[in-house]
Amino acid sequence: QCGHVYLVGAGPGDPELLTLRGARLVAGADAVVYDNLVSPLVVDLAPPEAERIYVGKKAADHTLPQDEINALLIRLAQGGRRVVRLKGGDPFIFGRGGEEMEALVTAGITVEVVPGVTAAAGIAAYAGIPLTHRDHAQSVVFATGFLKDGALELDWPMLARPAQTLVIYMGISRLAEICARLIEHGLPAGTPAAVIERGTTARQRIAVGDLESLAARVAAAGIRPPALTVVGGVVGLYPRLAWFAPGA
Amino acid sequence: QCGHVYLVGAGPGDPELLTLRGARLVAGADAVVYDNLVSPLVVDLAPPEAERIYVGKKAADHTLPQDEINALLIRLAQGGRRVVRLKGGDPFIFGRGGEEMEALVTAGITVEVVPGVTAAAGIAAYAGIPLTHRDHAQSVVFATGFLKDGALELDWPMLARPAQTLVIYMGISRLAEICARLIEHGLPAGTPAAVIERGTTARQRIAVGDLESLAARVAAAGIRPPALTVVGGVVGLYPRLAWFAPGA
Repeated sequence: QCGHVYLVGAGPGDPELLTLRGARLVAGADAVVYDNLVSPLVVDLAPPEAERIYVGKKAADHTLPQDEINALLIRLAQGGRRVVRLKGGDPFIFGRGGEEMEALVTAGITVEVVPGVTAAAGIAAYAGIPLTHRDHAQSVVFATGFLKDGALELDWPMLARPAQTLVIYMGISRLAEICARLIEHGLPAGTPAAVIERGTTARQRIAVGDLESLAARVAAAGIRPPALTVVGGVVGLYPRLAWFAPGA
Repeated sequence: QCGHVYLVGAGPGDPELLTLRGARLVAGADAVVYDNLVSPLVVDLAPPEAERIYVGKKAADHTLPQDEINALLIRLAQGGRRVVRLKGGDPFIFGRGGEEMEALVTAGITVEVVPGVTAAAGIAAYAGIPLTHRDHAQSVVFATGFLKDGALELDWPMLARPAQTLVIYMGISRLAEICARLIEHGLPAGTPAAVIERGTTARQRIAVGDLESLAARVAAAGIRPPALTVVGGVVGLYPRLAWFAPGA
């Protein structure tokens, strides 16, 4: 008898941001396969007898290559188990969930997808930065700093449009370059921008500035990955709307 | 003594997609103020004695004007109550949560924001459409078909970029126009596209085609709002990855 894989988004960090459905599925899992951005408190919802397998994915540096993760999930499911594959954020937004699901479906495994609060939405909410706002942004774009060949080859003309919010997943190591390119492609140097480290968790830290000053402020604050970059007029609301006091 | 407002994202439709934190806050609320896209099962998590206030917002046609919603929330909070403001999807993505929060903060009310699964992420997950995918989309953009003056005045050059996924919130009444404009601005007429009605619920229905055929297919299927439009190569994965069988 063949098992079943649930591709579950664990949310942006705070374990309380897991969905009710995600929590129920973890609590009924035979095996939990999880990434390094998933809170240990979410993994701990699994029954004591469930197998827990860490496949810690750190941006470009995967602990386990994607092919091996796929093979592991297939093997576990073919063993007849209820497998919960926990991914940080949402499985279909920069989570490579689509690729894992394709591999599973090709192998004849049935899969269900449980969406999660994606990092951009969760982290912006805790930072007090609305991603859309009638006065500042009619659209929001999520992009990633990593491409297939590892080169920073983004669609700059699209990312540098006015009246939108831009969220960059995991692009902090190339932050100075990103800011320079956005200015080069037409965004004013004074466009508000922020980097949020470990957003939604007790270790959340924020550096705020504009495209000109942000990289220096992030360096001065010693902010490190995992971090999310938000660019756009909405970041100007942060001083008024910030509400989350980590560790308070 | 002054109360407190929790701005809570109720998720895209399926009540099981509410977060653990959202569920706990609703269960402890003195008053719940909710929109028409919020599942009754979420509102029902409130204690029996809690006040339930429907402010049913339907896209452009608000049952209660935004000013009155703001005034209501302020009045409730100033009465010393724990107010949960439930919004469909995520409060900071096309939810006007930023504006509500600004009004509350200006009135001296403390506010916390609980992010939710935004409609795009939730509905795409249930439809089997990854929003990003290394072979198809390095970025995803969320836009809305409504602007401040009601005119369909979107940033077409940005929306029509290749190698991205475009999700349009609530744009179905102008779907033919949207598809035509995207083609006009450079997207191939054969770009896969889908409209999903009442995604993640038992009444989910999908029309799939391309930019040329989509509007006719949506009309033929009698698909109506609330609905979400997804455009991009990732929609081509739908036939293989669709897993959710509503009503099954």
